[in-house]
Amino acid sequence: MAGGPEIERLVLLLSKLPGLGPRSARRAALFLLKRRALVMEPLAAAMADAAAKVRPCSRCGNLDTIDLCSLCADSRRDGSIICVVADVADLWAMERSGAFRGQYHVLGGLLSALDGVRPEDLSIGRLAARVPDEAVEEVVLALNATVDGQTTAHYVAERLEPTGVRVSRLAHGVPVGGELDYLDEGTLAAALKARR
Amino acid sequence: MAGGPEIERLVLLLSKLPGLGPRSARRAALFLLKRRALVMEPLAAAMADAAAKVRPCSRCGNLDTIDLCSLCADSRRDGSIICVVADVADLWAMERSGAFRGQYHVLGGLLSALDGVRPEDLSIGRLAARVPDEAVEEVVLALNATVDGQTTAHYVAERLEPTGVRVSRLAHGVPVGGELDYLDEGTLAAALKARR
Repeated sequence: MAGGPEIERLVLLLSKLPGLGPRSARRAALFLLKRRALVMEPLAAAMADAAAKVRPCSRCGNLDTIDLCSLCADSRRDGSIICVVADVADLWAMERSGAFRGQYHVLGGLLSALDGVRPEDLSIGRLAARVPDEAVEEVVLALNATVDGQTTAHYVAERLEPTGVRVSRLAHGVPVGGELDYLDEGTLAAALKARR
Repeated sequence: MAGGPEIERLVLLLSKLPGLGPRSARRAALFLLKRRALVMEPLAAAMADAAAKVRPCSRCGNLDTIDLCSLCADSRRDGSIICVVADVADLWAMERSGAFRGQYHVLGGLLSALDGVRPEDLSIGRLAARVPDEAVEEVVLALNATVDGQTTAHYVAERLEPTGVRVSRLAHGVPVGGELDYLDEGTLAAALKARR
């Protein structure tokens, strides 16, 4: 590519980002090179900073710069209720809804025969241990309303049965077949309120 | 946002990239945080590297880590013909076509009454000076086949008239109304060959 290996490498790495193909990666690279001080240098610094500091929380699996994460460490949050999500993106979506003030547990994915994700690949055992350890009274399963999501919800509910904890799921405000991360905040809030 | 100001800042800066909105910026941030060693740290380094080293070529306006740029410095390229492009993205598109072996001149944009881009905002004077300085025999105007592109081509051709240089344009293989950066390499090569 005209401009040397530095630009070529930048374009190649940008094209790995989800949503950017080779063409949009070239546009993004040029955009950055033209906005060196305003975007490129701050973004490079923010990435290096996040790469150095952000770690999964050893309790809930959320990503944060401190461990326990800021949500686990927040004593104003209700420790008697845990919201189980597949991924940090779903945790962020729940937090944007502003409707949940309890604790979280990030499974790290969904059971999937197709993708070969088995129960031992998810942090289900750690969740089952948290219930008695933290005297949890309710576990809300906030998982995608897809086949994999509902299979996972069913499996998690079964694994939690011996603990005697109350297990609820998001109400059917979640559109069937839809993914949590794409939901608007209002629908998420309504679904949480009508959980069963 | 759950996860602290570092993640928030990363998402905010990513959302400034062309093609990434707030939602896709969040997905990109999570993608990066999960691929720390493989993508995030190399990308941060590539950005810092490019930000520190890449500069516009003082002769043609191309972006490169050396000045003159690697194209201007390449003695195997034909110095008697200059291809005029609006933007570095268009230079890259021409180079991908592999059909041009002369020198380039990047105008830095197109004349536009709507966007308030005037002749003195573009490097047209510098182009006019290059023609006698470098004993240029032909100038190929490779500008978008849009109203702004054709207005600019017309204006540049007029400005070059006193130099007596031969001025050509890409042939009408370029689809009318289309933008250069979106063209396939084959069409670009054909258009260059049939220039008039």
